[in-house]
Amino acid sequence: MSESGQTMYGRRILFYNIMEITVNLESRSYPVFLDSGNAPKLGSFLSDKFKGRSCALVTNDTIAKLYSSYINTLTKKTGCIIHVVPDGEKYKTVETWNSILHTLIKERLDRTSYIIAFGGGVVGDMAGFAAACFMRGVDYVQVPTTLLSMVDSSVGGKTAVDHPLGKNLIGAFHQPAFVWIDIDFLKTLPRREFIAGYAEVFKYAFIGKDEMFTFIMDNKDAILRSDPKALMECIERSIRIKAAVVGEDEKEAGARALLNFGHTFAHAFEQFYGFEGLLHGEAVLWGMVCAVELAKLNRTLPENHWNIFDKIIDGLPLPSLPSSPNADKIYSAMFSDKKVCGGSLRFILPAAPGVSVIAKGVGESEVKTVINKVLSADSKDTSL
Amino acid sequence: MSESGQTMYGRRILFYNIMEITVNLESRSYPVFLDSGNAPKLGSFLSDKFKGRSCALVTNDTIAKLYSSYINTLTKKTGCIIHVVPDGEKYKTVETWNSILHTLIKERLDRTSYIIAFGGGVVGDMAGFAAACFMRGVDYVQVPTTLLSMVDSSVGGKTAVDHPLGKNLIGAFHQPAFVWIDIDFLKTLPRREFIAGYAEVFKYAFIGKDEMFTFIMDNKDAILRSDPKALMECIERSIRIKAAVVGEDEKEAGARALLNFGHTFAHAFEQFYGFEGLLHGEAVLWGMVCAVELAKLNRTLPENHWNIFDKIIDGLPLPSLPSSPNADKIYSAMFSDKKVCGGSLRFILPAAPGVSVIAKGVGESEVKTVINKVLSADSKDTSL
Repeated sequence: MSESGQTMYGRRILFYNIMEITVNLESRSYPVFLDSGNAPKLGSFLSDKFKGRSCALVTNDTIAKLYSSYINTLTKKTGCIIHVVPDGEKYKTVETWNSILHTLIKERLDRTSYIIAFGGGVVGDMAGFAAACFMRGVDYVQVPTTLLSMVDSSVGGKTAVDHPLGKNLIGAFHQPAFVWIDIDFLKTLPRREFIAGYAEVFKYAFIGKDEMFTFIMDNKDAILRSDPKALMECIERSIRIKAAVVGEDEKEAGARALLNFGHTFAHAFEQFYGFEGLLHGEAVLWGMVCAVELAKLNRTLPENHWNIFDKIIDGLPLPSLPSSPNADKIYSAMFSDKKVCGGSLRFILPAAPGVSVIAKGVGESEVKTVINKVLSADSKDTSL
Repeated sequence: MSESGQTMYGRRILFYNIMEITVNLESRSYPVFLDSGNAPKLGSFLSDKFKGRSCALVTNDTIAKLYSSYINTLTKKTGCIIHVVPDGEKYKTVETWNSILHTLIKERLDRTSYIIAFGGGVVGDMAGFAAACFMRGVDYVQVPTTLLSMVDSSVGGKTAVDHPLGKNLIGAFHQPAFVWIDIDFLKTLPRREFIAGYAEVFKYAFIGKDEMFTFIMDNKDAILRSDPKALMECIERSIRIKAAVVGEDEKEAGARALLNFGHTFAHAFEQFYGFEGLLHGEAVLWGMVCAVELAKLNRTLPENHWNIFDKIIDGLPLPSLPSSPNADKIYSAMFSDKKVCGGSLRFILPAAPGVSVIAKGVGESEVKTVINKVLSADSKDTSL
């Protein structure tokens, strides 16, 4: 598939013949390419686009082992140096980010250099934040290797590291030069990580208008089975929604906040259970259930929609929780979140199929009631 | 003095009746105010502009002691928390920056909060970089307390920390909401720091067109004596030049590089001598002499101008150097500088009175010849 004539990459796309979705941000617009299993093509594209410019590829130790030959191909084409970080959200810290910068400086990369973020959301966020700060900003490219990073974190220019008191509290908006999605990476993705990515796909059902709601309802089982056609289409649809939202509101002054559906809960769950106890996507799955329950409790969601939302929630592949929740501690953790403004929490709550709204001034007792109700119920692990 | 009707602050300016220079950057335009000795006025302006928003003031231990009553006034008006960093360029590190962020997070500041950078260039650069990265960017205000930060670093949105291998290698472009220059701070500025700031004022003689060249030539002694009228005028003229250059080229794609006159040498001198051995401005003084000599050597500066430039250089209050130079090591240090592009050095060299140009491809031996010639000569300390 090809969308020619849309961007400056038009002619090249006809040559490469791959799908392209544009994130429209005026002078910072960029393409998201969807491809499968072709490292030489990415290598050629990089060496063409960044002719003569030095480069560093940042990845984690798991991906470095799994995709050593893919990385070798890129190294040959671009001459990039490699910086490997440890795998896992607990390493998404100022210290790891600083180690990337140290390599860039020691290896004498310069203002014209570029970074390839090759991995999941943690690598993408950290390498992107290093690109944002190295010499006050250099180009970078996102090559996401997980479902979560393909449909969500690689697109939109949010980069960050975590702080012990909260997720993504230190970061920058820094848009990539392009995003290269190769769905063949999903073949080696552990099932647990796949489910975590599914959470963010599913999220778009709540905020992506009626059409996405229907698509997800009709295809959720096929997506969970990794049916290639359903998977490709859900990735494309997710990216189109994400690109549209980001194009409308790059710095989250308004509409972009909707992308945080389930995330006010999720970030607090991650903090309470620790990043290893609960993956980000797993926390989002539970967060979405809570958002639906909260919307029912405070009547953001009219009663005539309750049935259909209950059915959605019942179909979610919810993972086991490491332990019983403590609503007080989880509620308190919510206040470290970036979505807190002027001391009050913000929730994204469903209002109709495919439509969510931003809710402020939700009462403490309502939030705690929902946490207790949802998380204290037996885990609904479907053993996926 | 007042310039009414220029900006959104027009009416307020008439009320406060202080001088205002605008940095024109479209939606990110902001005013630089010039005032003297009026903490309550700044406090009222802050609490008016940022009504109801929480705030942190970042300063260093020297300024915190010297200006405790000024800071108290601001605290009363704004309710700001205070974060004190150690005084000195050697603390301009990722670690100190991280300590600022830790305070902002621990004290539960949020996306609507703002930062007051209250101090010299080090405080301004670091607090500005913390503001750039806290929750992906919050507002901040520059209140420079040194001559150097008044005429140079507080205006233009360059924020950064140093790395052991080079200055300002980790940072961001993040424009302040406004800059508040109170020249009364200069009364407590140590002489050595004053001279360091004078270096950056003097720099504008080389890049600020004929008029600034003439002004500096006519007033250099009065400025060095801290004559109030000459001092106020040179600060105003310097800021106008800086604001114009930044407005033209915010991210240093072209003209802004001229502001680095003397700095390719200076940054390498600082690295060679250590940040305590040589202050930034002192390094810039020596760097400017080297730039003039290099321009003579490679004929960027026509011979008919040599006389006048020799006279300029003779009048510079050059500080003693801690030790003899090592041209090899200094030359090598130049390659960690951000101005290196594609492995080749860039120098800003004088071409005529008030006019400088960007020179690439300068030979290694020419650079080393100049370093040896200029730095090996006896120090010309004028005991100022």
